[in-house]
Amino acid sequence: MTIDSSWIEPGYEGPWGPQTLPYGVFSRAGRRPSVFTRVGATALDLDAAFRVLAPEHAPLFGQESLNTFMASGRGTWEAVRARLTEWVTDPAFAKVLRPHLYPLSSLRATLPIQVADWVDFYGSIDHARIMASIFRPGQPSLPPAWPHMPMGYHGRAGTVIVSGEDIPRPDGQRLAVGEERPRYGPSRKLDIEAEIGFVVGAGSERNEPIPPERLADHIFGVVLVNDWSARDIQSFESVPLGPFLGKSFATSISEWVTPLAAFTHAWCEPPVRLEPLQAYLGDAATERGLDIAVEVRVNDSIIARPPYSTMYWTPGQMLAHVTGNGASARTGDLLGSGTISGPVRHQRGSLMELTENGVVPVHLDDGSTRTFLEDGDEIVFRADAPGPRGTRIGIGDVVGRVVPSTSMPEELSATASVARA
Amino acid sequence: MTIDSSWIEPGYEGPWGPQTLPYGVFSRAGRRPSVFTRVGATALDLDAAFRVLAPEHAPLFGQESLNTFMASGRGTWEAVRARLTEWVTDPAFAKVLRPHLYPLSSLRATLPIQVADWVDFYGSIDHARIMASIFRPGQPSLPPAWPHMPMGYHGRAGTVIVSGEDIPRPDGQRLAVGEERPRYGPSRKLDIEAEIGFVVGAGSERNEPIPPERLADHIFGVVLVNDWSARDIQSFESVPLGPFLGKSFATSISEWVTPLAAFTHAWCEPPVRLEPLQAYLGDAATERGLDIAVEVRVNDSIIARPPYSTMYWTPGQMLAHVTGNGASARTGDLLGSGTISGPVRHQRGSLMELTENGVVPVHLDDGSTRTFLEDGDEIVFRADAPGPRGTRIGIGDVVGRVVPSTSMPEELSATASVARA
Repeated sequence: MTIDSSWIEPGYEGPWGPQTLPYGVFSRAGRRPSVFTRVGATALDLDAAFRVLAPEHAPLFGQESLNTFMASGRGTWEAVRARLTEWVTDPAFAKVLRPHLYPLSSLRATLPIQVADWVDFYGSIDHARIMASIFRPGQPSLPPAWPHMPMGYHGRAGTVIVSGEDIPRPDGQRLAVGEERPRYGPSRKLDIEAEIGFVVGAGSERNEPIPPERLADHIFGVVLVNDWSARDIQSFESVPLGPFLGKSFATSISEWVTPLAAFTHAWCEPPVRLEPLQAYLGDAATERGLDIAVEVRVNDSIIARPPYSTMYWTPGQMLAHVTGNGASARTGDLLGSGTISGPVRHQRGSLMELTENGVVPVHLDDGSTRTFLEDGDEIVFRADAPGPRGTRIGIGDVVGRVVPSTSMPEELSATASVARA
Repeated sequence: MTIDSSWIEPGYEGPWGPQTLPYGVFSRAGRRPSVFTRVGATALDLDAAFRVLAPEHAPLFGQESLNTFMASGRGTWEAVRARLTEWVTDPAFAKVLRPHLYPLSSLRATLPIQVADWVDFYGSIDHARIMASIFRPGQPSLPPAWPHMPMGYHGRAGTVIVSGEDIPRPDGQRLAVGEERPRYGPSRKLDIEAEIGFVVGAGSERNEPIPPERLADHIFGVVLVNDWSARDIQSFESVPLGPFLGKSFATSISEWVTPLAAFTHAWCEPPVRLEPLQAYLGDAATERGLDIAVEVRVNDSIIARPPYSTMYWTPGQMLAHVTGNGASARTGDLLGSGTISGPVRHQRGSLMELTENGVVPVHLDDGSTRTFLEDGDEIVFRADAPGPRGTRIGIGDVVGRVVPSTSMPEELSATASVARA
């Protein structure tokens, strides 16, 4: 066996080889969830494996989320990863570990992290420019603060869900063109947003900002994110407090959290800076982004390939900014990159941008077209990144199917009660 | 003893009599925190009391937050409150309970709830109009969506802190008048926001919006809130994503959560509706606000008396809106009313409004003036509401003292690294 292959699936050469070793929380039929890793399509039960081979760490894995392990800190993350790498590449461990392997298809995924605060950034310069041209035509192409800081807002942590859960079309107030009063009913502009999420493992105290170069001491790993968005609800509600119910109905993340330590070969130079960097946002000469390739499918047609390498603001800068006012970070905080969009049309990570707000439909392989999502559509995001020796690093898929609104019909719901005036 | 007095402090006639019976989490020297209630300045250890008198409920109170008790649901909340009322008013319980009484001054408060999501609304029409006139002069006096929905945004749950904790002046980027580039450094416009907070006890499932009339099945109680705000940071960062670091450094809540059940005599009619209500926001003929009087002190000078009764959007409407898109609610969710401001100047709940963005100083009793907060200032909010038979219902104080920024001096921090262009 070499360090790029495993006795678990000897012929496997894909992104889920020993170079990746992600963490997820799964349950077997009738059992409590616990922490697993994977090689190929085979999952290893870490609770069982550590009980046998390294019982001092076993309490980190007999858990219903990764938070206990994440809170244990970088030293433990590194020690655990070193063990796993040894176990899955050295056939001497096959006999003792084989009883604790399961086909992925036999396991049920649960949300891998207990989300503390969910912060969504706006880190793609192409996305920010395109959104400004759609939502604020005639105004400057970037918000005034955009070149100076990674702008963001807090989203709803309680509606972060795991890949695979259905997405009922959300209801809300939206204002139709030419109408004076909003109507309440199912969104007609349901959209996706392809993002990369960074999960805080080790938190920080109040009033101790985290400099960008300490990213790896705090960020445990990476997830893929679909930040579902109802554009009609969002555009009516967003002035002046920002996105709220247009986003808060659901945010899907991948089943797997890929350790930041797996991305050693994926760091890359971010785009040229438009403005000098404030000192708390790091040194432009050393700050780095990540070369992650993302693919967006609707009903199995690829509609976009957003390149994370084009993101203007780096993960280190996101973490430095969110703590830069003295706010603490907590285990389970999720920092989303914001929609990933590159300079070319097929690199845009939302239908809003791909279709220019519903004007230019995208074509699917089955001959149909889409402006926004239709009930029944299944959306799949995939992502990977360069690994050592020509391998790829796996990042978990994010899958979600749109199902009809569960609300009463619009005719009924739009009936407003009489004002008491 | 009557139902308005207690053997615990027989002469006591203030707002903390048996008509209130709030919950808080406190620790005695060297002990783990647990849940207490109070009569006057005396606290009753509920963990100990229930162990002796009603052990089936004791596991709810030997906890480091109220969340276990809150999650138990309205039936249990009512059963517990009935017990407590009986115990503190019937002298027959004096002998068994007296060993579990402590002077409040001997206890140390901790954050009473584990905050899930923190949502800050914008429910005062006077506040919304004044803020619009300051931040967006020449534009309509209310944002377009304001009359149609209780607008809000998600804040940072991880920096909600308990009354009494110091408030270091936050750092951030702010743009001085006449300058082209922002500087990073301590806020020069540190402000307060007087709010009422509603704490979700019993959560809800995804896709099951909570109608306003079911408020009392879900809302456990009421806290007083100071949502500290750095106006200079906020005004530079807020377009288009809303408030972020200008708010996320700290939100103080009272030590005590007053049960919603205590407010029976405080419900009142909200202001006349400007627009017909969408059905999901309830019936204007029956929807009710609360008559809560708030007092704002800076260094012991009263600078404002914001009346919660003037709030346009009711707590029932806030809860209906936040779940109206299918989002779930969770035990520990905190819904803030937004700054409470009445129509008269001395009723405004922030310095931004009281001083018209620093133009008209407020005068303190010691002869000094304030535009925004200075290091060393101590801010105290107090609040109460009408109770039965002429009593008042207590709501906990919120106290916070501003301390200097812990960051490096501005001269250093403003040094930007060289752009790589």
